[in-house]
Amino acid sequence: MDEKIILFDPHPRKIDLIFSAADKKRLEKLGKVLWHEGQRAPDDYIDEYLSQTIAIVGQTAMPRARLDHAPHLRLIANVEGNFLPNIDYEECYRRNIHVLSCSTAFAPAVAEMALGLALACARGIPQADAAFRQGREVYSGASNLDGFLLRNKTFGLIGCGNVGRRLLPFLQPFGGEILVHDPWLHDHFLDDLGVRPVALNELLERSRIIFMIATATSENEKGLGAKQFAMMQKGTVFVLVGRAQVVDFEAMLDAAESGHIRAAIDVFPEEPVPAGHRVRRTANVILSGHRSGGLPETYREVGTMVVDELELVLRGLRPQRMQAASIETAARYRSKPVG
Amino acid sequence: MDEKIILFDPHPRKIDLIFSAADKKRLEKLGKVLWHEGQRAPDDYIDEYLSQTIAIVGQTAMPRARLDHAPHLRLIANVEGNFLPNIDYEECYRRNIHVLSCSTAFAPAVAEMALGLALACARGIPQADAAFRQGREVYSGASNLDGFLLRNKTFGLIGCGNVGRRLLPFLQPFGGEILVHDPWLHDHFLDDLGVRPVALNELLERSRIIFMIATATSENEKGLGAKQFAMMQKGTVFVLVGRAQVVDFEAMLDAAESGHIRAAIDVFPEEPVPAGHRVRRTANVILSGHRSGGLPETYREVGTMVVDELELVLRGLRPQRMQAASIETAARYRSKPVG
Amino acid sequence: MDEKIILFDPHPRKIDLIFSAADKKRLEKLGKVLWHEGQRAPDDYIDEYLSQTIAIVGQTAMPRARLDHAPHLRLIANVEGNFLPNIDYEECYRRNIHVLSCSTAFAPAVAEMALGLALACARGIPQADAAFRQGREVYSGASNLDGFLLRNKTFGLIGCGNVGRRLLPFLQPFGGEILVHDPWLHDHFLDDLGVRPVALNELLERSRIIFMIATATSENEKGLGAKQFAMMQKGTVFVLVGRAQVVDFEAMLDAAESGHIRAAIDVFPEEPVPAGHRVRRTANVILSGHRSGGLPETYREVGTMVVDELELVLRGLRPQRMQAASIETAARYRSKPVG
Amino acid sequence: MDEKIILFDPHPRKIDLIFSAADKKRLEKLGKVLWHEGQRAPDDYIDEYLSQTIAIVGQTAMPRARLDHAPHLRLIANVEGNFLPNIDYEECYRRNIHVLSCSTAFAPAVAEMALGLALACARGIPQADAAFRQGREVYSGASNLDGFLLRNKTFGLIGCGNVGRRLLPFLQPFGGEILVHDPWLHDHFLDDLGVRPVALNELLERSRIIFMIATATSENEKGLGAKQFAMMQKGTVFVLVGRAQVVDFEAMLDAAESGHIRAAIDVFPEEPVPAGHRVRRTANVILSGHRSGGLPETYREVGTMVVDELELVLRGLRPQRMQAASIETAARYRSKPVG
Repeated sequence: MDEKIILFDPHPRKIDLIFSAADKKRLEKLGKVLWHEGQRAPDDYIDEYLSQTIAIVGQTAMPRARLDHAPHLRLIANVEGNFLPNIDYEECYRRNIHVLSCSTAFAPAVAEMALGLALACARGIPQADAAFRQGREVYSGASNLDGFLLRNKTFGLIGCGNVGRRLLPFLQPFGGEILVHDPWLHDHFLDDLGVRPVALNELLERSRIIFMIATATSENEKGLGAKQFAMMQKGTVFVLVGRAQVVDFEAMLDAAESGHIRAAIDVFPEEPVPAGHRVRRTANVILSGHRSGGLPETYREVGTMVVDELELVLRGLRPQRMQAASIETAARYRSKPVG
Repeated sequence: MDEKIILFDPHPRKIDLIFSAADKKRLEKLGKVLWHEGQRAPDDYIDEYLSQTIAIVGQTAMPRARLDHAPHLRLIANVEGNFLPNIDYEECYRRNIHVLSCSTAFAPAVAEMALGLALACARGIPQADAAFRQGREVYSGASNLDGFLLRNKTFGLIGCGNVGRRLLPFLQPFGGEILVHDPWLHDHFLDDLGVRPVALNELLERSRIIFMIATATSENEKGLGAKQFAMMQKGTVFVLVGRAQVVDFEAMLDAAESGHIRAAIDVFPEEPVPAGHRVRRTANVILSGHRSGGLPETYREVGTMVVDELELVLRGLRPQRMQAASIETAARYRSKPVG
Repeated sequence: MDEKIILFDPHPRKIDLIFSAADKKRLEKLGKVLWHEGQRAPDDYIDEYLSQTIAIVGQTAMPRARLDHAPHLRLIANVEGNFLPNIDYEECYRRNIHVLSCSTAFAPAVAEMALGLALACARGIPQADAAFRQGREVYSGASNLDGFLLRNKTFGLIGCGNVGRRLLPFLQPFGGEILVHDPWLHDHFLDDLGVRPVALNELLERSRIIFMIATATSENEKGLGAKQFAMMQKGTVFVLVGRAQVVDFEAMLDAAESGHIRAAIDVFPEEPVPAGHRVRRTANVILSGHRSGGLPETYREVGTMVVDELELVLRGLRPQRMQAASIETAARYRSKPVG
Repeated sequence: MDEKIILFDPHPRKIDLIFSAADKKRLEKLGKVLWHEGQRAPDDYIDEYLSQTIAIVGQTAMPRARLDHAPHLRLIANVEGNFLPNIDYEECYRRNIHVLSCSTAFAPAVAEMALGLALACARGIPQADAAFRQGREVYSGASNLDGFLLRNKTFGLIGCGNVGRRLLPFLQPFGGEILVHDPWLHDHFLDDLGVRPVALNELLERSRIIFMIATATSENEKGLGAKQFAMMQKGTVFVLVGRAQVVDFEAMLDAAESGHIRAAIDVFPEEPVPAGHRVRRTANVILSGHRSGGLPETYREVGTMVVDELELVLRGLRPQRMQAASIETAARYRSKPVG
């Protein structure tokens, strides 16, 4: 091989969004980088370089036939955040080509946002701000009749993947019990994290604050419906970040509107949300437009992680920072990619 | 003494706000409780019982002359949250009458609110909610151009009393350095808390998130003015809870309006804030009507603490849960009582 | 007053043991220091300077009569570690003369030693080392038949004063429940520390590792006897640091010798221990000669704390780092001073 | 396939050492378990069942030819603790047969022991015990002239794998900086753990307590020799657990004997150590016969983990609790198996 090529195909991401000058420089030490952006790389462009390519940064389709033409390929780094169905995951696995997703780069930001939304919900921060601007603010105790502390309350996490594990250290200082329901994790694994593994129903009934942070899978679509919301305690704070299809959205809004729960909602079945959608007028909710993960510093972390992983792989080590596609679960994901 | 009397004079607090049935029962085991509320107890009523009184729950004036008539008095528990100038603190000290304030009961709630406001400010939570309701929400990365993570950022605490010490465990998981300026605490005491003691200017220049949680004293009135706000980094999140007189309020609003800082403001020079006050229209601020400490569960904690302390004192021990008046500093406080 | 005098009377401590050059210099900025050591300062020497003295560093007798001659005295700093009966504590209190003990300077070292002894006991570290030196070591699993992890085990702390509060952060990462029995602390205070307050018997029955770290008082002499040791689970690790008189020493040795418990013993009823004392031959114990607190760096911390406290008092603040004598409990202490 | 078979070949481990009755029962729900122990399973016995085997619990040789006869094999669980060279790791990987090692079951015990040895070394716990038994104990400060606290000291971890990650939570409460050198981990991965990645030399020069917890690899044999020990600060505590071949053992003993370092040694180049080996008489060392990991409860954890992993794999998930062989590094390990 004359030259090791690193192919770029990051659309819809822009290079400068995800790569700092320093990370670009680090990457260029690892091979010849073919910078490209603005649209999906054309098929013939990809095909031209595959024989020398060691890494692909982007969402390029990589079926079996293409893999056959890429004998030096070691790493495919999705920089958008989901495992798409355009890759032959099993064949990549057999060839020890690491297929990685940048979702871990966003997890710290999502965890902070989940905490912020929980506090905003428990204390009515946006509602109080809006009232103040309209000259109808209430002061002191009279404004907090429904407010409560997170201190010593029971938390429930539905899903305990990248986001959950970033969230736990933030919740532990509040001192309450932490329940987790995650059908993809062994109870003993959760014990070892210091949380209590429970069935979904127990979590719904016992938690005062519920974080819905499960990824969307073939198994959990609309996993929380009217029945599940009814099982929650009155006044439960329900934080929805990640993917909207894991709940029955209308049932959730009904539960909020009736005053049974309060919800902080960062994701929606359809984005952008239609102008007249009832969610804009629903009581007891806080609204946020899919804002939990994508910030300037997390996008840049994507680029840093990509370079880190390629450095590791070229040193004969396994990736350590991004999420590796698992052939067991890759086909079960149901998240829709960024539009 | 025939009977040990516990005098109640909690106005403007209501008994049922601060005492649960269980705590009332616990208290009644310690002496004959003269329940009273609704207005300040009349002088002659107080005077009538002083000779048998072991504890006063409330804000009763206790000058030297009255102390002379209360030979069995052991404890005065302020249930409003400030040390008022109507007590002879020195004489109480000499007689080992414990003068206590319930401010510690509110500290956990204030710390949670300070964290919630910091996250709300860093991530624009109320602004995004308001935009969404008006149909002009922005999604994903485009909505977060000014957003940032608390992770690995430098925190600055101005004041590290009851609130600060509750706040520290919440901040430590974010991983950044924690600077503290508190002229009433020894640098070595702060070292031992695991934080870095610094001069005020260093804190202002280096912190990305500043928590103004100092109590108001004779020494810090308007301690932060235009010069100090100018020293902060552009984009600093400034969280003001506690008392408003520690900042030059107009200078703070100027700094926010210009976009130099973002502020979360829970206290105001005058409460209620006048209808036309500029703060209602100032950009880059989050408004909250003195809501950080007084919640149903914290008010009840006041009553619990009062009973706890009296139990301890009657067992020959010192109070452990409320804030004890210190004759060194009691006279330096400048907080205005609840109206 | 012509000059503020700081009187030294630290015997049996030596000045250079407890004061670094830097701390000496800091102290000399606060007043005229009359350095003295090697023996108790003679009465007439003390009396000569009392009228100008602002602070006494040492164990000088200070009865009421002497206090009357020390109108400027603000602070008495015991640098040996116990509250002796040669001070009129009530009168000091009335005059707001701070009587302080350096015991807090030793607490971090005692806590580390308690942890080290617990691990040494649970894992047989000294026994394995001794066997190895004698050529009869056992390897791997066969050597650990009685060994156990601290992980997820129940800890019991008898006493939760300065040492206990330093010990808690070391125990929390092991993940088990932490029980505390301390009759001088309110249950709600302990709740707030994140530990479970329990009656002594419950602690004895449920704990796998017991830390006896209570100070000796008029109430707890030989508080643990044959009956209490029998209540412990077989194989309990019992760590005794602090003061020996809180246990029935012979009963403890009986319990160890029979194999019912394992003990790590740092303090003894009589020190030095008589040459032929049975403790030297008792099975299942680890022996340590009152070594938990006094290390070069902790002695130096005493001097640092003394200067810190005097700095604070002269700035109009209360002491923050040493233990303040409480008139409620000072008379109940029964620790014997260092010989 | 008529029946799913789980083959047992755990020698030199005994079944009852590693499997509780409850875990046996759990395992039997997953397939037909062919319990076997006492010696390596004969080749023809293995070959007889391969066609129906879904899991192998033990150290069975599994070359390519055998894998060809085991079409249903999903999991090979080493229950001894090392990756042996008798498996075709690449072919297992290609077939998505999980090859797992139980080393993670021992990591919590090794981490506790490493902490215990560090404290024992810093405080001279075994030496003081031995002296006491010989009637030549020293008391109090005089016995601690070389003692020091772990508090605020710099820790250095050479290697940060399973053991290191269990050790970190125990070290964090001491408050000092934690340096890590691990050539198999990316600096940014270590940053994210909250430790400081450093070059080996910096670690050696700056650390007061060094934990040598690296696994033995083809790259680090005798990685610490006379030159490296000389770089350490005088009085450094050096804790050696894991594998002895990572140090030049004689150079380490020289450094201890001269008083330059103190060492706690749990592993030796030859075990059992020859009767007359100098290590038995070397000053400034604590000796322990490969005792850090193997305890009754950790052996039982091996069995629990094996069942957990098989449960996961049969549910279509990846293993979560044991260490997975990595084809990148499996060939680089140089640990000798348990004899």
